[in-house]
Amino acid sequence: MKSLEERILKDGVIINNDILKVDSFLNHQIDVALARNLAKEITETFKGYGVNKILTIETSGIAFAYAVAQEMGDLPLVFAKKSKSATVGNDVYTSQVKSFTRNLVSQITVSNKYMKPSDTVLIVDDFLAEGNAAFGLLDICRQAGAKVVGVAVAIEKGFQGGRNRLEAEGLKVYSGANVKEFKDNKPVF
Amino acid sequence: MKSLEERILKDGVIINNDILKVDSFLNHQIDVALARNLAKEITETFKGYGVNKILTIETSGIAFAYAVAQEMGDLPLVFAKKSKSATVGNDVYTSQVKSFTRNLVSQITVSNKYMKPSDTVLIVDDFLAEGNAAFGLLDICRQAGAKVVGVAVAIEKGFQGGRNRLEAEGLKVYSGANVKEFKDNKPVF
Repeated sequence: MKSLEERILKDGVIINNDILKVDSFLNHQIDVALARNLAKEITETFKGYGVNKILTIETSGIAFAYAVAQEMGDLPLVFAKKSKSATVGNDVYTSQVKSFTRNLVSQITVSNKYMKPSDTVLIVDDFLAEGNAAFGLLDICRQAGAKVVGVAVAIEKGFQGGRNRLEAEGLKVYSGANVKEFKDNKPVF
Repeated sequence: MKSLEERILKDGVIINNDILKVDSFLNHQIDVALARNLAKEITETFKGYGVNKILTIETSGIAFAYAVAQEMGDLPLVFAKKSKSATVGNDVYTSQVKSFTRNLVSQITVSNKYMKPSDTVLIVDDFLAEGNAAFGLLDICRQAGAKVVGVAVAIEKGFQGGRNRLEAEGLKVYSGANVKEFKDNKPVF
């Protein structure tokens, strides 16, 4: 989406030629209108796929995933939790996710009440890099017997291989902006 | 809001006569339409207060706060982070918040880029119990010189004193449902 690419060029900050910081509109402060416009494109992209549930992972994917869930017709939105909470029971599916930006492995959980064999799932997140978060969520859906049709993210870092890994699993991948490389400390789309 | 009270009675689970678990529609799986209906009431409640920014705290407040930010006219939504991330710089306001359900103290941070003296803030969260999260967010706004007009939550546990503490600070408090007590393992509104 052109407006997202322009926004990244205007407000994105590149750290260590590696991490793209978009705190001002996606990760810490959220531009609601931008998220909704992306959600409209995602809704168009996955029309006819029979999606009945949106799955994301805390924290920074939640606001964007909410926009998608609403735009696709007020679908239920489930977010995987990163640690066992006092208010989550033991009847959960779990998987492991390595965070690219934080360089640590988290356990993620989804209650077995909210993921079922009858579910057709679209995985939504803010970023796609190596695809680790998406694979963790895919693992949980498969444990539950749910079908996953695709992965939709705001920003893809195309040089980190996540898309290829996901497409090899038969998933359709959407990104609002695909950063092919960082050159002279600028993203190239 | 009547529909929220009914939903709590139908799907809420009380743990240890203390914690109200609403994982099925607010905290783990989110009912988008319900969040939007609450957001409409909040927009009505704070009409004329000049709110130009929504502030919440990760994790479970984010989806609900997104609904409010959108309903109030696509306001910027900022969520306080619970730990220092590799992608948050050092120029942050910080405060401490004790979680009632998890019984631990977290450091929360907001970048000084996203909270300014020109901001008129509505604090939004999923729950109000003792008011600790709201006070942490209020503290951060005051450090930034921003004005806070009120606190809006989906569910209040009225017997835990948060509302009184916040009203004593001159804030207007909205809750979609106010649980006055738990009786025979049922919430009473």
